[in-house]
Amino acid sequence: MEIQRVVRDLVTTKRLGTLYAKSLRVVEDYKGNLSVALDPIGCKPGDWVITIGISAARYAAGNPNITTDLTIGGIIDHWSEEEWRS
Amino acid sequence: MEIQRVVRDLVTTKRLGTLYAKSLRVVEDYKGNLSVALDPIGCKPGDWVITIGISAARYAAGNPNITTDLTIGGIIDHWSEEEWRS
Amino acid sequence: MEIQRVVRDLVTTKRLGTLYAKSLRVVEDYKGNLSVALDPIGCKPGDWVITIGISAARYAAGNPNITTDLTIGGIIDHWSEEEWRS
Amino acid sequence: MEIQRVVRDLVTTKRLGTLYAKSLRVVEDYKGNLSVALDPIGCKPGDWVITIGISAARYAAGNPNITTDLTIGGIIDHWSEEEWRS
Amino acid sequence: MEIQRVVRDLVTTKRLGTLYAKSLRVVEDYKGNLSVALDPIGCKPGDWVITIGISAARYAAGNPNITTDLTIGGIIDHWSEEEWRS
Repeated sequence: MEIQRVVRDLVTTKRLGTLYAKSLRVVEDYKGNLSVALDPIGCKPGDWVITIGISAARYAAGNPNITTDLTIGGIIDHWSEEEWRS
Repeated sequence: MEIQRVVRDLVTTKRLGTLYAKSLRVVEDYKGNLSVALDPIGCKPGDWVITIGISAARYAAGNPNITTDLTIGGIIDHWSEEEWRS
Repeated sequence: MEIQRVVRDLVTTKRLGTLYAKSLRVVEDYKGNLSVALDPIGCKPGDWVITIGISAARYAAGNPNITTDLTIGGIIDHWSEEEWRS
Repeated sequence: MEIQRVVRDLVTTKRLGTLYAKSLRVVEDYKGNLSVALDPIGCKPGDWVITIGISAARYAAGNPNITTDLTIGGIIDHWSEEEWRS
Repeated sequence: MEIQRVVRDLVTTKRLGTLYAKSLRVVEDYKGNLSVALDPIGCKPGDWVITIGISAARYAAGNPNITTDLTIGGIIDHWSEEEWRS
């Protein structure tokens, strides 16, 4: 899994049915690279999260028919910009 | 998922039957790296899209027998070059 | 999928039975990085191709028991070094 | 698999049920990039480990329903910073 | 698949049962990055090999229950440092 930070929501009105109506978040890694993760937890911008990729992302979404390759798996209790970039 | 931009169509007359007659698009990431994504939605050059990879790409294609590793999952409502590269 | 160019054949006399007797090609990406792809199509050096990775590579090989993680999926009709590196 | 070093534990009180109550560790690669791995072995900070990714990570967790994409597979008997970075 | 060179054996006395007693080798790519591959063939340091990743690695190991994400698939008949780095 990767340590990422939630940046903002992402709205895709025109989307595949296999993404259902699941919330998508833009997340960034410690280098500032942006990705899009499905959020089954309900995160807000600024939250430090762990993201789950590969086939596990579909199962983490609660239903393997949900076609995600990145899903937020949890909110980190204690993290800081310093730890991240060290 | 990744945020990418549709660059152009890609024609492969000589292709595997497992790609069926699905439309392929050249997409670029924020660094300008090019990939090829299957497009079940019907995008046009310039559209900002989210792309789905890993095994989810096959399911997102509408049929897991379609042998794609990258499929366009939706068109982003609001995005800009600035957000992308920041 | 990725846009790659066929460089040469690759001979591996001592190989796993799960690769059967399938042809392997050395392919390069636009940065010149080399990979090895299974070729079910019959490409020649210099051909511009799309390569399929992840679990889709096994299905693209014509038999999911073939243990490849990269398979050539088609030959691109029109491509050039310029488009590739732009 | 990758050679990584255990840095610290990671606590995520708010997490998906599909991660169960498994221990998570922050691990670093030789470039200092941080990832999060599920630890079925019981490692301590400083241990040199091999980490298993892709779908194998779920099976390595002892139950494929555990939604991890990185799992610690073993502790390396003899390794050193020098070998790692050479 | 990737072209890699076998560097040395890797001993992990404390390992998951899902890796069985399979031999592990440290392999390097042309940039000198190290990974760990399961070796069902019996390679020696210095051998040029192709490595198979993704879910195919488990099947290449001879048993999909073996939790590897990288498995040596064959020994390359003719390869050289020059071809590799060109």
